[in-house]
Amino acid sequence: MNYSKFIEQYANHPHYKAPTGNQLHAKSWQTEAPLRMLLNNLDADVAEDPSKLVVYGGNGQAARNPEALKKIIECLLKLEDDQSLLVQSGKAVGIIPTHPQAPRVLIANSNLVPEWANWEHFNELKERGLMMYGQMTAGSWIYIGSQGILQGTYETFVACGQKHFQGDLKHKLVVTGGLGGMGGAQPLAATLAGATFLGVDKDPVRIKKRLDTRYIDKMTYSYEEARDWALDAKEKGEAISIGLVGDIGDVLEKLLADNVIPEILTDQTSAHDPINGYVPNGYSLEEADQLRVEDSKTYKAKSLKSMARHVGFMLEMQKRGSITFDYGNNLREFARQGGEANAFDFPGFVPAYIRPLFCEGKGPFRWAALSGDPEDIYTTDQALMEAFPENHHLINWLKQARERVAFQGLPCRICWLGLGERKKAGLIFNELVRTGKVKAPIVIGRDHLDCGSVASPNRETEGMLDGSDAVSDWTLLNLMGNTSGGATWVSFHHGGGVGMGYSQHAGMVVLADGTERAEKCLERVLHIDPAMGVIRHADAGYNLAQEKSDEFGLTL
Amino acid sequence: MNYSKFIEQYANHPHYKAPTGNQLHAKSWQTEAPLRMLLNNLDADVAEDPSKLVVYGGNGQAARNPEALKKIIECLLKLEDDQSLLVQSGKAVGIIPTHPQAPRVLIANSNLVPEWANWEHFNELKERGLMMYGQMTAGSWIYIGSQGILQGTYETFVACGQKHFQGDLKHKLVVTGGLGGMGGAQPLAATLAGATFLGVDKDPVRIKKRLDTRYIDKMTYSYEEARDWALDAKEKGEAISIGLVGDIGDVLEKLLADNVIPEILTDQTSAHDPINGYVPNGYSLEEADQLRVEDSKTYKAKSLKSMARHVGFMLEMQKRGSITFDYGNNLREFARQGGEANAFDFPGFVPAYIRPLFCEGKGPFRWAALSGDPEDIYTTDQALMEAFPENHHLINWLKQARERVAFQGLPCRICWLGLGERKKAGLIFNELVRTGKVKAPIVIGRDHLDCGSVASPNRETEGMLDGSDAVSDWTLLNLMGNTSGGATWVSFHHGGGVGMGYSQHAGMVVLADGTERAEKCLERVLHIDPAMGVIRHADAGYNLAQEKSDEFGLTL
Ligand SMILES: NC(=O)c1ccc[n+]([C@@H]2O[C@H](COP(=O)([O-])OP(=O)(O)OC[C@H]3O[C@@H](n4cnc5c(N)ncnc54)[C@H](O)[C@@H]3O)[C@@H](O)[C@H]2O)c1
Ligand SMILES: NC(=O)c1ccc[n+]([C@@H]2O[C@H](COP(=O)([O-])OP(=O)(O)OC[C@H]3O[C@@H](n4cnc5c(N)ncnc54)[C@H](O)[C@@H]3O)[C@@H](O)[C@H]2O)c1
Repeated sequence: MNYSKFIEQYANHPHYKAPTGNQLHAKSWQTEAPLRMLLNNLDADVAEDPSKLVVYGGNGQAARNPEALKKIIECLLKLEDDQSLLVQSGKAVGIIPTHPQAPRVLIANSNLVPEWANWEHFNELKERGLMMYGQMTAGSWIYIGSQGILQGTYETFVACGQKHFQGDLKHKLVVTGGLGGMGGAQPLAATLAGATFLGVDKDPVRIKKRLDTRYIDKMTYSYEEARDWALDAKEKGEAISIGLVGDIGDVLEKLLADNVIPEILTDQTSAHDPINGYVPNGYSLEEADQLRVEDSKTYKAKSLKSMARHVGFMLEMQKRGSITFDYGNNLREFARQGGEANAFDFPGFVPAYIRPLFCEGKGPFRWAALSGDPEDIYTTDQALMEAFPENHHLINWLKQARERVAFQGLPCRICWLGLGERKKAGLIFNELVRTGKVKAPIVIGRDHLDCGSVASPNRETEGMLDGSDAVSDWTLLNLMGNTSGGATWVSFHHGGGVGMGYSQHAGMVVLADGTERAEKCLERVLHIDPAMGVIRHADAGYNLAQEKSDEFGLTL
Repeated sequence: MNYSKFIEQYANHPHYKAPTGNQLHAKSWQTEAPLRMLLNNLDADVAEDPSKLVVYGGNGQAARNPEALKKIIECLLKLEDDQSLLVQSGKAVGIIPTHPQAPRVLIANSNLVPEWANWEHFNELKERGLMMYGQMTAGSWIYIGSQGILQGTYETFVACGQKHFQGDLKHKLVVTGGLGGMGGAQPLAATLAGATFLGVDKDPVRIKKRLDTRYIDKMTYSYEEARDWALDAKEKGEAISIGLVGDIGDVLEKLLADNVIPEILTDQTSAHDPINGYVPNGYSLEEADQLRVEDSKTYKAKSLKSMARHVGFMLEMQKRGSITFDYGNNLREFARQGGEANAFDFPGFVPAYIRPLFCEGKGPFRWAALSGDPEDIYTTDQALMEAFPENHHLINWLKQARERVAFQGLPCRICWLGLGERKKAGLIFNELVRTGKVKAPIVIGRDHLDCGSVASPNRETEGMLDGSDAVSDWTLLNLMGNTSGGATWVSFHHGGGVGMGYSQHAGMVVLADGTERAEKCLERVLHIDPAMGVIRHADAGYNLAQEKSDEFGLTL
């Protein structure tokens, strides 16, 4: 299709839609795939704010600005299978000659030399149009809406329940802050896991969005009403979710005063960004917007202080019995900076619940049907249930997901699979495409939050056994490995969920287009990628990972 | 060859030697090449301290420790052409399935998440055996001895002469500190450029090494003698070089007192590492060694203070007329930290002299003859002179190099070539191998200090036109590009010449083994690599780069 017609139809700012069907617009599926996923990231059903090209996480963008986005689209439409497009912080900067087994798109977002790797410098560069924030899957074009985080959050709540509540979250109350792009997955994840849920967000629009997608059950502006609903449901053992409009700090303060102590307490406000994310206590959304623009220094100071207060209440609840954990937004770090010296007294969710999964190379395996047809996803669901008949946890998840998860944008699915399993699944999908059992190719990707792809000492690599939390060599090897193996697009980001300075991570997406080339790429990449996780954890001294490493012949 | 026999013959710690000749030890030249270059990096004729696996730059290592080195060798001996070896800070950590057009070795050294990217944390990890410092070409196995920096230093002095002294350095005095692995190239570079040279190093062993390799002409322990020699030679217009044992700060102080003001003043002490590199004023080498171990905090404080003093004298000389520049060791930054507020009043050498070259994709193209036969290098010299008959500067350099540069380890050559030229040269070399005009394959690499491969705001990317000095997306795209193009080994490092926190950079080496596969890889990689430099500088707004970009069809 001709460029301007394509733009008119699919990328008329701020209206974005991925093409569907099995008709190509680009020259092959290898370039059609990133094109569709980029546009899917910006679909109004998927993205938090398409007008700003913001996909999720407060400021995570898919492209630097509308012109840069158009140029990327133009390049993808004409790119050949022996060329690769270079994308620097959301802007196409070059096309280089490569070969069919190399990635078609090479992406680097928000990377800064360490001494300058802070929000101040980044924002300066951003204002001058030189950078954008890529978050994890926003700038790497594999965000799939709330379902992405849903499975991870569900796994976390389930693991938490197994560790602390004999595997049963009935009659248990989960309290949390933030119901945005990622945080909005919490209510459904909690109720899927059997708990009663109370979530607090400053912004009613965010909560309404969760109502629309059936991720949350009820909403109110009244603290008292929310509290009573929650206590009532908890007593009855009802797995329902409640969204309350308010400041999370204020609500925790009131709950403490009322002696309502939730069994599980966490948070997913956009704490990772104290200026453009977290809303300081005492400010309305409008006041906050104004202060942010007029005096970002004061804003930051107030933000840090509010987080300290917020974490102070969390620590008090922890003392009174709540199982309390940080859910990956770097809240503890900024609370510490804001004056709460004990902020790190509660753990992050990874060492608490996720690390054992990482040791087996397990992580957020996800895929999307480029056809746009939900039936294609149901076909893949079915194929996986047949391929892993002994994995009841997986089968249960796939069934529940089909029933309760509304698709956003291109139909997609996520489940956590380990080393060996990912390759197996990828080859099955390629076969489904080859034999026409699905209507168009399928792309397979994952979050940057995975076993071998991220270095983030306050989140994924917190408290590593050997103290190698901050070593990011592993992340770079993951990038090089997936690039060498033949992923369809790869990315390297700085910042992500915990913000500037605090993490580095790599992404990959690989195409199942039914060809032999794809089969080879899938076989390699879906081995390399989780293998890096096992290798990294084995090297750090985890027995479980060392066993996996031996089992898969990875030990040198 | 059998592993233990190989170790005995070539890697009997601390005696290392690259195999020579055209007999394979590994399974193909694709793996024999990194094997030979790794061992060559550690050859006593090349490395500063093989017993510590230190190649250059004070602490730049080729492998983490002797066992790790052996394991790398073992892996390279058995690696297949559809496998790649993963090296994490000098230790082999895995082998992954890839394909023949992918790199055989993937290397990540010294990378840390920005918030933890400092010497303190690095040294802690190093002590626990988890990391090593890769410098630029030490940990990426393409250091080629002093010749590597010689050409760059020569280009710099020549460019400085052209800018400030009508292209003539006769009757001009160059003064500098540090005659170590890299700094030792300064005396020969200066005299090749026609100047009189006085270099100061605390360590007589280092100066003697330069005498042995004919990089320096004379040596003394007496300030007065050195001063008189220098003044005499300068007056007579003699291009001779003098090495003086002493503290550079003390010597500058005395020169100022005697009103001896050099025309050109720079420095290459190992300032980038205030603990393991720079020797504080007033300390003997032995005293420094002791303090370093016993109380590294005090050592660092003294180091910073000494650098402040040292730079204070440089600023005074600048005021009195010396053309003064930082030669890439981050001296200004540490002097600033040590209390010299005006440290950045003299420029770095890149914005002053090198950036225009970078805009044309010019950089330190280097190659080594794996045969070990100097004749092979002379053959390549000759081929280049024939290929670029109009490039008098290049021809002059190649002739002088042949006459005056002693080979260290495997014979090799370096010259600065630009976009287009590098690919041309690479294909010529592959043809020389294919037709048997040279006796074994040739590897082509470069320093990480190149036009498109480094982000280093105090050195290579200082003062970029658009202020993007600290943006390291470019460096990562360079890595991904060269990996996708099919370099034979690739690397990503943090720190390098300016130390922890201050730079990120990518390396690549590509093999000319005379095959068609190599031809394709060379054609791609030797285009991609310098093209990234042109693209990066064009994007930053440099006209010269934008013209190049248009000329080579790189503009999107
Ligand atoms: N654990 C994980 O796996 C994971 C993954 C990705 C992102 N994250 C992090 O989780 C956080 C949330 O991500 P998101 O995409 O939902 O961000 P988002 O910006 O879409 O949503 C954040 C929400 O927090 C609300 N909020 C801000 N301050 C508040 C306050 N004081 N009281 C109540 N509500 C407040 C905002 O109104 C907004 O709705 C981010 O920090 C993100 O980096 C975690
Ligand atoms: N400009 C470039 O292109 C470039 C390239 C690579 C490295 N470097 C940097 O240049 C510096 C030198 O590198 P190298 O490989 O020669 O390091 P090196 O450690 O081999 O040599 C440094 C020398 O400085 C001497 N020295 C230290 N303190 C001194 C003092 N107070 N007075 C006199 N001499 C002193 C040491 O005795 C040693 O011989 C490093 O900081 C390195 O990172 C620059």
